[in-house]
Amino acid sequence: MSKPLIFVTNDDGITAKGIRELIEVVRNIGDVVVVAPDSPQSGMSHAISLYSDLSCDQIIIDDGPQIEYACTGTPVDCVKLGLNAILKRKPDLCVSGINHGSNSSINVIYSGTMSAAVEGAIAGIPSIGFSLLDYSNEADFRTSKIVVEKIVNKVLKEGLQKGTCLNVNIPKCSYSDINGYKICRQANARWIEDFDVRNDSKGKTYYCLSGNFQNFDNRKDTDEWALSNRYVSIVPVQFDVTSFDSLTKLKSWNL
Amino acid sequence: MSKPLIFVTNDDGITAKGIRELIEVVRNIGDVVVVAPDSPQSGMSHAISLYSDLSCDQIIIDDGPQIEYACTGTPVDCVKLGLNAILKRKPDLCVSGINHGSNSSINVIYSGTMSAAVEGAIAGIPSIGFSLLDYSNEADFRTSKIVVEKIVNKVLKEGLQKGTCLNVNIPKCSYSDINGYKICRQANARWIEDFDVRNDSKGKTYYCLSGNFQNFDNRKDTDEWALSNRYVSIVPVQFDVTSFDSLTKLKSWNL
Repeated sequence: MSKPLIFVTNDDGITAKGIRELIEVVRNIGDVVVVAPDSPQSGMSHAISLYSDLSCDQIIIDDGPQIEYACTGTPVDCVKLGLNAILKRKPDLCVSGINHGSNSSINVIYSGTMSAAVEGAIAGIPSIGFSLLDYSNEADFRTSKIVVEKIVNKVLKEGLQKGTCLNVNIPKCSYSDINGYKICRQANARWIEDFDVRNDSKGKTYYCLSGNFQNFDNRKDTDEWALSNRYVSIVPVQFDVTSFDSLTKLKSWNL
Repeated sequence: MSKPLIFVTNDDGITAKGIRELIEVVRNIGDVVVVAPDSPQSGMSHAISLYSDLSCDQIIIDDGPQIEYACTGTPVDCVKLGLNAILKRKPDLCVSGINHGSNSSINVIYSGTMSAAVEGAIAGIPSIGFSLLDYSNEADFRTSKIVVEKIVNKVLKEGLQKGTCLNVNIPKCSYSDINGYKICRQANARWIEDFDVRNDSKGKTYYCLSGNFQNFDNRKDTDEWALSNRYVSIVPVQFDVTSFDSLTKLKSWNL
């Protein structure tokens, strides 16, 4: 039986510890091709490069056997380029991460890691984004690797509903301290911005994005609740963003 | 009675014809503050600038009376900066556009115009993205201006459901040729990529993103159907991207 073909990308860049650890897990499960950004692309969301040509060069970082390409574009560029210009056939799975830092709740919208997974889903491929709740470059991914192996094998066996991918977030603790896995909805939370303002020597003002994360959601079925209670959170994410709830009300408008 | 405060942004840049025409309409309805990118930002989706400081300088482009700022960031940066560092109070409405080109169906995900509107909704402000189905720099916005005026007044009067904004797309024709307004869902459509590949004189390969739009959705309740039949399409868009349909199935997984 032929091995599954697994496509790997991320947003922290191809040399980040998180993607190296992800590759270590999935190359034991399938044939792996990596197309990942050559530089950090956090916060790039679903951006695509409409104004610049991309380069995408094969690169050797470790002994393999995966095949790897470093790309000058965004995470979504990497997926588009990988699926349409690099891979010879449609992969069986697309995995993105492991992100250094949370992509729970509203962060799914800003995250390059999750947008790469969403792009995989748009292309009809079962796709998963993995994130660890630790922003450190030297984060400990041992727990994450067990979680990745479990979920990747499950998705390869069961598949995912068309039009969806998974947003998996992993608490920062040892695997024995994990209370389990929770299938959740995205919590109602957001960032309250608080720009750092500085003036240069000529008096020109610069703003640096900064903010505080606020969770407005007290219910127990959310990813924020799961993570606070040391569960791995799994949110199914869809790219049809229609608010079906609003349709009836809007149809009563007389335009 | 005090006038409504209307915040304006776009992704084509502050000097684009589309935003100038949008400003002309809304300054007759309320007090207008513009914070828009100083350069084209199409395809930037919900990207935010995590690695660079932003500048945001007041600028005079026409006789006003709106107040305008040109910002070095993405459309979502403009919204965050506008709401948190420029405006003195929460605006009554956030409008984005008028985009030069369609943001229907899956384009809502890639669009900087629509992401700015989504960011407005995240901040709790009734928000609308407007797009005209004409990519030309010199597009004719006369029909669009009538549409904008109608929808802006309606939203100021009726409000929008919390957690949603509107994605309004306008056919390229005269207003008398418009068949009306349709409240729709996002069509199931996507881009099939086809990269233009070129080699430079040293043999290095570059890829330029290109593709064909394909609509897989034959039903008549979609934005694509509406636009093809010369209706203005209005899709309510939400930022909770949980696939609630998938929750039950996933909960049966034994992880």
